[in-house]
Amino acid sequence: MVSFSDIEAAAERIRPHVHRTPVMTSRLFNAASGVEAFFKCENLQRGGAFKLRGAANFLLSMGDDAVGNGVVAFSSGNHAQAVAIAAGIRGTRATLVMPTDAPQSKAEATAAYGGRIVRFDRMKDDREAIGRRIAEETGATLVPPFDHEWIIAGQGTAAKELLEETGELDALAVCVGGGGLLAGSATAAKAMYPKMRVFGVEPAIANDWALSFAAGKPVEITPPDTIADGLRSPKPGKVTFAVVRPLVEDIVLVSEEEIVAAMRFLLMRMKILVEPSGAVAAAAVLFGKLPKGIGRVGVMVSGGNVDLEVVRGL
Amino acid sequence: MVSFSDIEAAAERIRPHVHRTPVMTSRLFNAASGVEAFFKCENLQRGGAFKLRGAANFLLSMGDDAVGNGVVAFSSGNHAQAVAIAAGIRGTRATLVMPTDAPQSKAEATAAYGGRIVRFDRMKDDREAIGRRIAEETGATLVPPFDHEWIIAGQGTAAKELLEETGELDALAVCVGGGGLLAGSATAAKAMYPKMRVFGVEPAIANDWALSFAAGKPVEITPPDTIADGLRSPKPGKVTFAVVRPLVEDIVLVSEEEIVAAMRFLLMRMKILVEPSGAVAAAAVLFGKLPKGIGRVGVMVSGGNVDLEVVRGL
Repeated sequence: MVSFSDIEAAAERIRPHVHRTPVMTSRLFNAASGVEAFFKCENLQRGGAFKLRGAANFLLSMGDDAVGNGVVAFSSGNHAQAVAIAAGIRGTRATLVMPTDAPQSKAEATAAYGGRIVRFDRMKDDREAIGRRIAEETGATLVPPFDHEWIIAGQGTAAKELLEETGELDALAVCVGGGGLLAGSATAAKAMYPKMRVFGVEPAIANDWALSFAAGKPVEITPPDTIADGLRSPKPGKVTFAVVRPLVEDIVLVSEEEIVAAMRFLLMRMKILVEPSGAVAAAAVLFGKLPKGIGRVGVMVSGGNVDLEVVRGL
Repeated sequence: MVSFSDIEAAAERIRPHVHRTPVMTSRLFNAASGVEAFFKCENLQRGGAFKLRGAANFLLSMGDDAVGNGVVAFSSGNHAQAVAIAAGIRGTRATLVMPTDAPQSKAEATAAYGGRIVRFDRMKDDREAIGRRIAEETGATLVPPFDHEWIIAGQGTAAKELLEETGELDALAVCVGGGGLLAGSATAAKAMYPKMRVFGVEPAIANDWALSFAAGKPVEITPPDTIADGLRSPKPGKVTFAVVRPLVEDIVLVSEEEIVAAMRFLLMRMKILVEPSGAVAAAAVLFGKLPKGIGRVGVMVSGGNVDLEVVRGL
């Protein structure tokens, strides 16, 4: 469904518009974890997260006619900012449907990137109906957050860049919510180095992917209240699950406390601000959740958009 | 006293032991400040600050006989960690004389790097007497924090790396406490691009350099209680002042509030943790303290070692 050549094409397409983010290493992290880790710092990406890669690839893949009518996305977080930036890149308008209780900082950032924000009340309003109305009124195209080949191919460019820099690694650890980043990362890694082991990581209280792996099909859970707000989607996407299942060895789980401890390590020792979702893969490595015998491991740091209140609570 | 060839030699000497730290840019910072800024991220240096450059150059410049007796340094902060790491590089012992009220985190980090810590009571003990006793007992060499040619030459390698990456800039902004980083930076910048303008930046309540520039000679002030703990030395060094005076156009001042606001901007928007001293040069640029008409400006981010309590207070 998504091939490495799709990722290569996405990389060419988005290159002028995204940062080639740095790959960081840390003697302190290696000493604490017992592995040699290579961090792909997508918290330093434009918009503060990897999401711009998929959104930019989506909008740059759309035909001129369709794009002329604008785009719409549902998101309380990083996808909204990414679509707003991508619309600016493509010279069109983005409407972002955000819940009234979305963090003010993310709404402000989205507006600063030129996005039009439509609020809905999570308890009273029908989000889908709002989306349909916007689409009918404007002819806008919905930009899905993860479950689409164009999005997955875009997200896969981060792992491609990482491995171009490090060469072959023993393993790659990637957080998984909807699954766009994991699907793209696994596709890139397995194409470049077929022997590499790829692991998804999610919060133990948001274990829809682990349950789905066990069941062999997407399983839905009650919307989880993890601190990792980017990983709260209650079930795997159809496309992402189909891509991930044959390529990813296992889904490993981390506790909320481990996520916070990893955020604190990345901030205080490595001096980078990482959002809870972005620290999940690092937490798995730091707390020994990967199988023994893995030496060199790539760690996706997916984003850095976090409210000051969360930082103050570390 | 310090020439560019000293800095080039230092760069060769320390290369295997220090990170070539990244140069970051930020559309958000440029939009907020109205200039194009290039941040040299020494907060990502080993030991969390530029200090390792000078300390490593000092220990690697010492003769084998002298180094065999170990080294000693007085510091409550980044210089202690740097000397401990440099002693490990050189295969010798470091004794760090730290006040009993030094941040626990810095003492712990220094010990983790293998340094032997001797505590003294700022109110009761004579620091110099402790140092003399250690030197007499062990034959150890004192590693000065800033006022020495080897230290200045080492610190100058950061600006050299920055300018190798960016090419000529209109200006360079560097924080100034004892003056080692500013002296080295100015020497490198003026040798590489003689038309470049170099500015020192210090807290308004720690204005010993500004007063000294006005007086034409080092002036001592009451030890200042600025949040920028790395810039609390009460007067310029003799060597650093002599190097800085003819090369640096002006010393500009920032308020405590501006330092905190710059730390917050660097953390929340640019996702990097910078200590108060490390944010001083960025504060000057962000709040328009440099003369008008400067377009491309290099900003030294000197370090990232800050206690969690300070982060929580942002």
